[in-house]
Amino acid sequence: MSLPSISIPQARRIAVDVTGAQIVQEESPATRDSRGIYLPHYIEAVSHIAIDIGGSLAKVIYFTRSSHPVPTTPPRSDPSSPFLAPAQTLSSPTSSSSSTLPHAPDSLASSSSSGEFHPPTPRPVINGALTPGILSNARAQSRSGSPARPKKRGGIGGHHRFRRTSLPDPLPGGLVNFARFETERVDDLIEFLQDLIADSARANRVSLDQMKSMVKVMATGGGAHKFYDRLTTELGVEVRREEEMECLILGLGFVALIPEEVFWFSEELVYKVSHPETSANGTPVPITIPAAELPRPSPTPPMYQVSFAPAGDDTPVFPCLLVNIGSGVSIVKVDEDGSYERVSGTSLGGGTLWGLLSLLTDASTFDEMLLLSEQGDNSAVDMLVGDIYGQDASKIGLKSSTIASTFGKVFKHGDSSQRRKKAFKQEDIARSLLYAISNNIGHVAYMNAAKYGLDRVFFSGCFIRGHAATISTLSYAIRFWSKGTMRACFLRHEGFLGAMGAWIKNVEDGDDAAAGINGVAAAAVAEALQLDDALEEVSKLSIS
Amino acid sequence: MSLPSISIPQARRIAVDVTGAQIVQEESPATRDSRGIYLPHYIEAVSHIAIDIGGSLAKVIYFTRSSHPVPTTPPRSDPSSPFLAPAQTLSSPTSSSSSTLPHAPDSLASSSSSGEFHPPTPRPVINGALTPGILSNARAQSRSGSPARPKKRGGIGGHHRFRRTSLPDPLPGGLVNFARFETERVDDLIEFLQDLIADSARANRVSLDQMKSMVKVMATGGGAHKFYDRLTTELGVEVRREEEMECLILGLGFVALIPEEVFWFSEELVYKVSHPETSANGTPVPITIPAAELPRPSPTPPMYQVSFAPAGDDTPVFPCLLVNIGSGVSIVKVDEDGSYERVSGTSLGGGTLWGLLSLLTDASTFDEMLLLSEQGDNSAVDMLVGDIYGQDASKIGLKSSTIASTFGKVFKHGDSSQRRKKAFKQEDIARSLLYAISNNIGHVAYMNAAKYGLDRVFFSGCFIRGHAATISTLSYAIRFWSKGTMRACFLRHEGFLGAMGAWIKNVEDGDDAAAGINGVAAAAVAEALQLDDALEEVSKLSIS
Repeated sequence: MSLPSISIPQARRIAVDVTGAQIVQEESPATRDSRGIYLPHYIEAVSHIAIDIGGSLAKVIYFTRSSHPVPTTPPRSDPSSPFLAPAQTLSSPTSSSSSTLPHAPDSLASSSSSGEFHPPTPRPVINGALTPGILSNARAQSRSGSPARPKKRGGIGGHHRFRRTSLPDPLPGGLVNFARFETERVDDLIEFLQDLIADSARANRVSLDQMKSMVKVMATGGGAHKFYDRLTTELGVEVRREEEMECLILGLGFVALIPEEVFWFSEELVYKVSHPETSANGTPVPITIPAAELPRPSPTPPMYQVSFAPAGDDTPVFPCLLVNIGSGVSIVKVDEDGSYERVSGTSLGGGTLWGLLSLLTDASTFDEMLLLSEQGDNSAVDMLVGDIYGQDASKIGLKSSTIASTFGKVFKHGDSSQRRKKAFKQEDIARSLLYAISNNIGHVAYMNAAKYGLDRVFFSGCFIRGHAATISTLSYAIRFWSKGTMRACFLRHEGFLGAMGAWIKNVEDGDDAAAGINGVAAAAVAEALQLDDALEEVSKLSIS
Repeated sequence: MSLPSISIPQARRIAVDVTGAQIVQEESPATRDSRGIYLPHYIEAVSHIAIDIGGSLAKVIYFTRSSHPVPTTPPRSDPSSPFLAPAQTLSSPTSSSSSTLPHAPDSLASSSSSGEFHPPTPRPVINGALTPGILSNARAQSRSGSPARPKKRGGIGGHHRFRRTSLPDPLPGGLVNFARFETERVDDLIEFLQDLIADSARANRVSLDQMKSMVKVMATGGGAHKFYDRLTTELGVEVRREEEMECLILGLGFVALIPEEVFWFSEELVYKVSHPETSANGTPVPITIPAAELPRPSPTPPMYQVSFAPAGDDTPVFPCLLVNIGSGVSIVKVDEDGSYERVSGTSLGGGTLWGLLSLLTDASTFDEMLLLSEQGDNSAVDMLVGDIYGQDASKIGLKSSTIASTFGKVFKHGDSSQRRKKAFKQEDIARSLLYAISNNIGHVAYMNAAKYGLDRVFFSGCFIRGHAATISTLSYAIRFWSKGTMRACFLRHEGFLGAMGAWIKNVEDGDDAAAGINGVAAAAVAEALQLDDALEEVSKLSIS
């Protein structure tokens, strides 16, 4: 039977069962984002480590085995069998990867050294380590003396049959882990991956070489090319390069399947954050947001009124505009069938803000910069319409608080740069520039969405970082320019689309040892791609 | 006869005879722009001083009598009868307006004190002073004992008849002068105008009160509102406020009539300035442009290959997109009939660049900042595609020199801001930010031009300042994004559109004392507005 000529761009490649997926509640104290995603029904045949190396940050994703999501029933593990890490950011030198457990957050590491000690015992489920399915098959084989997996992928009966026959031990389920490094410290990234592989070998009681043969690295982003040779040589595993934009779109299609991953700011919230209260004398009162609320939209959003798609909402994620804000900004048009085109971009992105603020403030991390901006009042440095028009502005129909010129108040003729700099507060500078960069991106994004008739704009990339002012500025820009006809959507794992795409793309291709387990579980993703019918065709084909 | 319902937005208001107009060759040493425009056939009934007070700069236009354009036969004048000023910028404190002749440039002031002295004699043409036509009429009246002007404006016979009957003495002709002040130093502006009026009174041998009664100030821009009370009180003349956008469009329609006012960069030039040569080791060689060439496109453009519309080119200026870059940026769509709408804008404009560079460099004027940028190499601070992708960039079809992230190389984790700042050259910072702001404006401008189906984008505003890198960046952005289907056009008096619009709009409305002189000379401008037919109708109406 010959294949019919139906076009299904990525459907066959995405093969992760997201049934029952949940974002874990716990997060690393070092980061405000990147909680792990627990997938109770998933297992991968070969361990895939996906990395997306951008200009400033390298993002890493890997899957570790766990029988339970962490927060509900937190199991303990011994130091040689690292417990799963919900998320981790290694952006500061002090928290960078060390020779200790690389993917265990500090809080857990300290609890494991607080007196509780579980001696290493052989356990069916190896929590927290890379534990490819092929390893279980090998174990089962060594016990039963015969291969547990079917010779060919697919077959009648679907995945339930394979779960029974090919996975007597352990049960599927595990956590997608997220980590982040500065590209400049690519050494740390490589060391982290070396440790992850070595620790997993120990946890699984196999040799390092055996472990390496069951690990593949998928690399995307510009650094996949720049560091390809180093990655291949120093990791000693197969490194595959994937195209950046394709991975972004694949990652978006996948992550949008996770409940409470996609969110947006309610109209009221956008308004509130965009219109800070003014005091009696007319100067804006800086928004004071409890630090505890900043990290991410909380699971039960109180003051943020963050909106998630209601359960059962099956609005497809495509078509949409994807605006990926890393060091620079890429704007990608995605059609209904998942085909995509990079239609625009701007060099004024995260790298610009970080660079400017690193010269203009004493902040030494991006998080410090964001904290500064929360305490600032941009009207001290920005020239507002009211500054130009005076009291008459509102009389002639202009909004006094509109920013006419970013930084327009700073230029003081004749002063020295040192004197000028002292005349302005770092907090005000940070707020002004965060707003300007975000607003400019929102503006360019709107224009592209309008050009291509798209009414949803997804913002991704590590620039956003779940930061209320950034999200509300982007949301407000989209709402303002589109007159409320478009919606700005955000993602809780916004920085990891590229890495997720590289991971997801290779899950099925990686190795056919346990491919049957994954091969039939694409339905959920296909749904997101609106390819149910097409996929049904494909299923029939692979069954027959 | 009732008026037919034809729509002619501005045609009746513009009433300046531009026959034989030329931009004078001489320019003030203090500025790189704003040469005067000589109008050999024009005279104004009442002296109109137009000011456009923006957030950062106040622009001034006024008309002074002169029988010849300066450079060809430079006449001398005595100190109390100030010689015409081709242009003047008072942007530095040392060159600010003083009690000496306010509108005489230094070079001329010194030549007049070099021994040559012409005793004050009554002369029919008062070179260089505000000399409203009404004054000539008054003189003629005092000689002949009867009023020379017709009772009603218009009438059969057109302007030739009025020239003969109402202007026996002096001959028409004079210079449109341009000056610029910082809005922060509005005191200087007011003092300048006070001196101009007082000096003109002396030159015309009338009392200050008489002079004031023949002077009107047209004010536009936000400062027209903010400083309205001060202007009215301290100048003691009528001050009229005009709407900003309308003035911009009127000014564009007028100035485009002046030969060699509109120019654009040739394709080759845009390419050359946008693609600096690279040395053997791959680092870009900064463009070194002889300082003498920078000021303005020279009348006989050598290396810049600036293109002017060929003589006799009657391409109408409308429809087009007008992008006015002051402290902030306004983007205005202009239809074929001269109607307009502000469709977009960005707060990232001249004020942003000045503000950022005043904190990040030691430059204390914008010209110093531009000079710095000419010596810089942006690749030292910007993250290029080649920096992210490494050697592979060109292999996979990307241009290594494309800027991926403005300032993307600056952020160095953990360094102090002082150390970071020292690590980067001011020149490189200036070049990067000049490019980024210009490119962003060009990008947003393109998107709006595309949205409204316009193929010409006029850039105006004091940000441009005839600066090669700015113009080529804007030109390149338009060319790049439009794939060569749009043209970026520039103006030699780019900063004065608003002021020119306010001036031109009120020429006819000002006073009917000599209105007949001007009232019928709208043909040339009407041509620009493509309103010949409509205007003919109006002419018939006013004749009958």
